[in-house]
Amino acid sequence: MTYSPATQDQLLAIRVNAGIADLAASERFSAAEPDMVEAIVEGIGAFAAGEWAPLNRVGDLEGAKLENGVVRLPGGFAEAYADYVAQGWNAIAGPAEFGGQGLPFTLACNVLENLGTANMAFSLLPMLSVGAIEALEHHGSEAQKAAYLPKLVSGEWSGTMNLTEPQAGSDLGALRTAATPIESGEHAGKYRIAGQKIFITFGEHDLAENIIHLVLARLPDAPEGSRGISLFLVPKYHVNDDGSLGPKNDVRCVSLEHKLGINASPTCVMSYGDNGECIGELVGAENRGLMAMFTMMNNARINVGNQGVQIGERATQAALAYARERVQSARAGSPDKTPVAIIEHPDVRRMLLRMKALTEGARALLYYTAGQVDRGTLGDEAADRRGDVLVPLIKAWGTDVGVEVASLGVQVHGGMGFIEETGAAQHYRDVRIAPIYEGTNGIQAADLVMRKLGLENGAVFAALMADIARDATSDEPTLAALANDCAAVGEWMRDTASLDDRLAGSVPFCTMSAVAVAGWQLLRQLRAVESGEAPGLAAAKRASVRFFLDRLVAEAAGLKASAMAGAEPLYALTSEQLAG
Amino acid sequence: MTYSPATQDQLLAIRVNAGIADLAASERFSAAEPDMVEAIVEGIGAFAAGEWAPLNRVGDLEGAKLENGVVRLPGGFAEAYADYVAQGWNAIAGPAEFGGQGLPFTLACNVLENLGTANMAFSLLPMLSVGAIEALEHHGSEAQKAAYLPKLVSGEWSGTMNLTEPQAGSDLGALRTAATPIESGEHAGKYRIAGQKIFITFGEHDLAENIIHLVLARLPDAPEGSRGISLFLVPKYHVNDDGSLGPKNDVRCVSLEHKLGINASPTCVMSYGDNGECIGELVGAENRGLMAMFTMMNNARINVGNQGVQIGERATQAALAYARERVQSARAGSPDKTPVAIIEHPDVRRMLLRMKALTEGARALLYYTAGQVDRGTLGDEAADRRGDVLVPLIKAWGTDVGVEVASLGVQVHGGMGFIEETGAAQHYRDVRIAPIYEGTNGIQAADLVMRKLGLENGAVFAALMADIARDATSDEPTLAALANDCAAVGEWMRDTASLDDRLAGSVPFCTMSAVAVAGWQLLRQLRAVESGEAPGLAAAKRASVRFFLDRLVAEAAGLKASAMAGAEPLYALTSEQLAG
Repeated sequence: MTYSPATQDQLLAIRVNAGIADLAASERFSAAEPDMVEAIVEGIGAFAAGEWAPLNRVGDLEGAKLENGVVRLPGGFAEAYADYVAQGWNAIAGPAEFGGQGLPFTLACNVLENLGTANMAFSLLPMLSVGAIEALEHHGSEAQKAAYLPKLVSGEWSGTMNLTEPQAGSDLGALRTAATPIESGEHAGKYRIAGQKIFITFGEHDLAENIIHLVLARLPDAPEGSRGISLFLVPKYHVNDDGSLGPKNDVRCVSLEHKLGINASPTCVMSYGDNGECIGELVGAENRGLMAMFTMMNNARINVGNQGVQIGERATQAALAYARERVQSARAGSPDKTPVAIIEHPDVRRMLLRMKALTEGARALLYYTAGQVDRGTLGDEAADRRGDVLVPLIKAWGTDVGVEVASLGVQVHGGMGFIEETGAAQHYRDVRIAPIYEGTNGIQAADLVMRKLGLENGAVFAALMADIARDATSDEPTLAALANDCAAVGEWMRDTASLDDRLAGSVPFCTMSAVAVAGWQLLRQLRAVESGEAPGLAAAKRASVRFFLDRLVAEAAGLKASAMAGAEPLYALTSEQLAG
Repeated sequence: MTYSPATQDQLLAIRVNAGIADLAASERFSAAEPDMVEAIVEGIGAFAAGEWAPLNRVGDLEGAKLENGVVRLPGGFAEAYADYVAQGWNAIAGPAEFGGQGLPFTLACNVLENLGTANMAFSLLPMLSVGAIEALEHHGSEAQKAAYLPKLVSGEWSGTMNLTEPQAGSDLGALRTAATPIESGEHAGKYRIAGQKIFITFGEHDLAENIIHLVLARLPDAPEGSRGISLFLVPKYHVNDDGSLGPKNDVRCVSLEHKLGINASPTCVMSYGDNGECIGELVGAENRGLMAMFTMMNNARINVGNQGVQIGERATQAALAYARERVQSARAGSPDKTPVAIIEHPDVRRMLLRMKALTEGARALLYYTAGQVDRGTLGDEAADRRGDVLVPLIKAWGTDVGVEVASLGVQVHGGMGFIEETGAAQHYRDVRIAPIYEGTNGIQAADLVMRKLGLENGAVFAALMADIARDATSDEPTLAALANDCAAVGEWMRDTASLDDRLAGSVPFCTMSAVAVAGWQLLRQLRAVESGEAPGLAAAKRASVRFFLDRLVAEAAGLKASAMAGAEPLYALTSEQLAG
């Protein structure tokens, strides 16, 4: 089962929701002209569909394998990664002084969207590298940047993020990996790293020449908790002063997890310093490691939300193809008893349109968020703040959308959806990680009600909802009402509710807020299309946006009671009573 | 990961929602006295948890395997099935004249609930046998009953249902398997069966001494479509007149499907008559095979809805156990910075209570439905009709609940939920078949709006919703409002909407109707508990029912717009346009 990149809908979202023309008007992003944007979106779409998509199934079937300390990916992955690097796709948004093209984050999102639609598991390799690049760009010394960024930006080397330990998952403050300063000798000024990390994506593999591990660890006598964490750079192979690779560092992959999905992405248990000789460099200031993580967290969370769009698109296309091909039963009530393709049956149409509306809504929200981030980079502080509010929305709701759409995709396939060979089940398995990693969706919702909602005393969130209500009030009263509901819940949370009350309603509140913004951004797409933008999309866009506004917005309104139900009912039982 | 049977909540549902005391007041079900009911519920719970549950994980890991035409189940399954048969559990509701206990369907539901919570894949073996027993009981000749029922009822033999063919899934009228009358010789009066069937659950295995296949096929010159289908009985081994087993019939398992879940349940491609020597007997009248299927379809659909309860229970218990054990982060906003078990965090509580409320709601609806079926058996026609309305609700919503709860279970486990060894992922994979088989949930919703809604010109559905509204109006206005909404949508569907409009809104309508009935049945449980029934459950029941009534009922109200959106928006695009 292959697919066609959603180039036209992506371009629409990049133009309307991200507002690429405004970005290109700045000096920094002046290269993002229409021709260049089209070339990138079309180019990465064709590359991903052509070279990465065919490896999606074999990646699932064979998976990554650990053999004698080396992680092997299925046949074809090495060549497909080499081509990706050779064509320069990894460098799209990387800093220009280190070989990147310095283009907007919006376009990096598009590169990831296409790669992940083609092969979600594989796309985690560049996605994690981006995190390492951002960390070094913002917190590395000049020497570190010079030594590591060029090859990370090109993709010849890859990067990893080493946060989690068995006792330190969502709570990074609990981590124990130790870093000891080296006083003298060859590595004087560096640190000896010792500890074990789990859930390390692409922690070991043979596609890149070197792997640059960014590792959170504690210095001796560091304060307890999250204020005593520092960030270290630990290369798989030491890098000589002339840039050539030196001996292997004392770091290894101990085992791979057996997972529900994304089998081609090796999820490694990494051991640092088994022989006491793991050498790392401090990145940024001592005890400021968590701050460095926060720098890249926003973009990383947007990138995970993007995965909901990716699987949504792939699952929708697969379901549409199956529904057009599978012939079963005549139309109910029709005098013509000839069996029809199931796409003609009303409830199958409903499922397909729901998949399409959810996916396009999540995409509209994704690029709207990316555009705000890019405006923030250009110095627009209001956009930067709005972007902060949008991050938990796209991460949590975007990934929920991915799971729902993948499940609907299984359903459209009927019995065949439960059989692995159709591929529908793989999407359902793969995407299930997205609501969990990079901060569970519950943590996203907590971020919304504990931090983002309070930005500028609530004015940032209120302004967002006011913009929606104002824009929708004349022709889309249901959407305007939802935005007003969100504003009212937000106000209640800020002014009246206890912290526990806020947390108790955080997930439904996050969902309804995301639906309000996504509905608004789809409405803006629809208006653009009706004004002559992308005429080829007009009919389809009208159908999917109407479905979203008429059905999904109404459903989201049903979450208000849950958002305001408060914490007391959740604590009426002790945990013993709850467990029965 | 083991579990404790939900004995107390099951007994509450059996008493309050099924009304077991009313059933036991009849002569037919007089054996269903309180002591007997408790003995069964406790006994099967202990048996299933003790003997079947430990095989759940090995069943998933090893799965069923086809070797030289023989299907092998993992070690332990044969002994566990033999014990199940020896202890008489298979015979609970079977006809008394053929060795069954003749107890209410309600109690057969309880046996299945416990078996399936322990091991969903394994429980499909007795579940399918029940279908064969019912078909023979209602449509078999006296000779067939005498020859096959005793050993099917005991469980020494198992039964299968052979409906699906590659081109005939939801549309059974398209099937092509042929049955040719045998005029003379040893098998005169019987039929030669030829054709291939797919998706045959436990079509071949080595746990029972014989397998009785019930096969839909066409006689020569039978009318086209669903009116030309007859039902045949095809034993794996011929049965001699003295009841001993004769030679093997010409039927074999060609291959097993590689599935997303329920790996211990062999899903067989069955080939009948490869050598022209597959012999079967006609069951019931010629060309009335589909009618015979309808006889058992109601109970089969309830049994699949039951699977949503089963996985809901198992996933909830696993999540509760993990959440009590996993320590991570201090309570937000608490001056005490000691990390707590995650069950103490508000959003984890919300997820756990949602899982509990959904599961208990589905269980209440399950036993309410079973009780109506049993009343129907006793001649109560109003209950019989109400049961007809409830069947699509428990099948569709019950299985949707199973999928949602299993997904929440993965989420509560965080990153560990995505790792197969915790077992949360298995529930998520296993339960995904339930919304598909035994009529997809879309087909259930179509059954609701095309047939069940119209029973007695709509009076059956209207009376159900009126009962809820009346019962809830004084103290639960939100529930009463939902029931009134359901009644209004039902009226619109019957009086105003086109068939396509009805189908376009059928799934949201089915969901909101199910939530209304489940909420009502939980309310009845709550009142019973408040009146002194099952005092041990009081606190927990209060919490879960309040969650259901305050949050889930409000969410369901948000589906009204979708239910009444009509078909026109779904057909604004041609299928080509929809596929882009």
